[in-house]
Amino acid sequence: MEIIRIIRIMQDTSKGHLLHSRSIGFVPTMGALHEGHLSLVRRARQENDITVVSIFVNPLQFGPLEDFERYPRDIEGDTAKLREEEIDILFLPDTSLIYPEGFSTYIEVEKISEKLCGAFRPGHFRGIATVVTKLLNIVKPTRAYFGQKDYQQAVIIKRLVKDLNMDVDIVVCPTIREHDGLAMSSRNTYLNKTEREAATVIYRCLTEASDLIRSGIINGIYIKGLMHERLLKEPAVSGIDYAGVYDPETLDELLEIKGDALLAVAVKIGDTRLIDNMLVTTTKGR
Amino acid sequence: MEIIRIIRIMQDTSKGHLLHSRSIGFVPTMGALHEGHLSLVRRARQENDITVVSIFVNPLQFGPLEDFERYPRDIEGDTAKLREEEIDILFLPDTSLIYPEGFSTYIEVEKISEKLCGAFRPGHFRGIATVVTKLLNIVKPTRAYFGQKDYQQAVIIKRLVKDLNMDVDIVVCPTIREHDGLAMSSRNTYLNKTEREAATVIYRCLTEASDLIRSGIINGIYIKGLMHERLLKEPAVSGIDYAGVYDPETLDELLEIKGDALLAVAVKIGDTRLIDNMLVTTTKGR
Repeated sequence: MEIIRIIRIMQDTSKGHLLHSRSIGFVPTMGALHEGHLSLVRRARQENDITVVSIFVNPLQFGPLEDFERYPRDIEGDTAKLREEEIDILFLPDTSLIYPEGFSTYIEVEKISEKLCGAFRPGHFRGIATVVTKLLNIVKPTRAYFGQKDYQQAVIIKRLVKDLNMDVDIVVCPTIREHDGLAMSSRNTYLNKTEREAATVIYRCLTEASDLIRSGIINGIYIKGLMHERLLKEPAVSGIDYAGVYDPETLDELLEIKGDALLAVAVKIGDTRLIDNMLVTTTKGR
Repeated sequence: MEIIRIIRIMQDTSKGHLLHSRSIGFVPTMGALHEGHLSLVRRARQENDITVVSIFVNPLQFGPLEDFERYPRDIEGDTAKLREEEIDILFLPDTSLIYPEGFSTYIEVEKISEKLCGAFRPGHFRGIATVVTKLLNIVKPTRAYFGQKDYQQAVIIKRLVKDLNMDVDIVVCPTIREHDGLAMSSRNTYLNKTEREAATVIYRCLTEASDLIRSGIINGIYIKGLMHERLLKEPAVSGIDYAGVYDPETLDELLEIKGDALLAVAVKIGDTRLIDNMLVTTTKGR
């Protein structure tokens, strides 16, 4: 595994592989790697000649009151895990190289960036759209891999790649969960024992709502009500940013469920904000 | 000369050339080609294996009260001229392919987009930044060519290419002028005979200001005053958007000229808005 820290070297390395008609699979991460990330890495390895993983904690996607400073970092542990996965390149750029003095270009994906998490984290998806565009231009992948856990992020990235005519396939992979259903997240390490146990309410809430929809209930507002009730019964839930039923493409709230539906939740467990979602497809089931 | 109208075909054609290590020179235009455009085309041909010219009148860079509908279009004449220049590919996409339904991603280059023309044409440079990013992703050029006449546009494109790590050289070529000094522009066709004669005041104003700076005058405000006076003496000048001395990089107004200086003018001659500029370099002369 080669570690590259310089943008120009990463670009030239990728160009070399592409000139030899080797496909490049890319997994952009913020590090603190868990099984969710590793599932993306394995998929990228399976489907491509060359696998590149980046670790970059992107300051641009954190609000001033958010957890940028506190966000878990474990470069040594991450490096060991990626070596074990036998990836080809770890791209590890410094913040000052990604955002040098004078940096002033931003990508805005309108409408879908304002929904769900966007309403609670202003500038968050602008930061993600900008850094992902940069990373895609640097790594030049054939395919880039993202987790479904960050559903809105995946929709936004698919949109911007299409809108800006970027020549890359965006592959969205299933959410990986702990044995009790909690979606894997680097932020789970923030939870104390009580909070960790309480956090399973999110998965249970999503599963129950999914079962209700599949049993034939089509009233989105009714299901939203049950989801809120379910979450608020758990004393460790200190706040709900959103919980409900949404259009999987526009992310608009669904009053009536006619086709596919996205169940999505963002809650605070103690001080930790966690998100999760479940796609309920009417044709194929989940 | 091949004419390509489909984005995917353009992308695949370029990819084929790059796989064979052929360099691609790209001249994006809005058509109504004049000697200014053709000078870019010739430079692109000289410096690259493959030359691509695009013609696309970009609705996104026109304000609601601007001249999008009226903007000169001459696909037949343009095609003939480009055939004569022996370019390889004319890329001629339809608006509905560049901005399909649901399009919602925009590039913002902050600060420099708000100066000069940006202050008078809100959204103009956002529209340019967005379409140029798209075109660069579609054509995948080694080098892209722009005229110095649109100085601010060139600075913004250089900024966004750097900020987004796009792997392309931006080449800025000298302004091409009519025999009496008027900068070539597709919009010159809007001018009637009196206006056309009056329009030379712009070049004369820039030349005089340039001479003053080179004679040692360093007071930017004084020179700005003289430029305004000069322009307003011409009865056909119906308004001045700006005229003055600016920092060539930040585009901020220069009170005192210490190094290189940008002289820039945007005026209305009758109903036609014309821009022009001149770079006064202290080390090399102009």
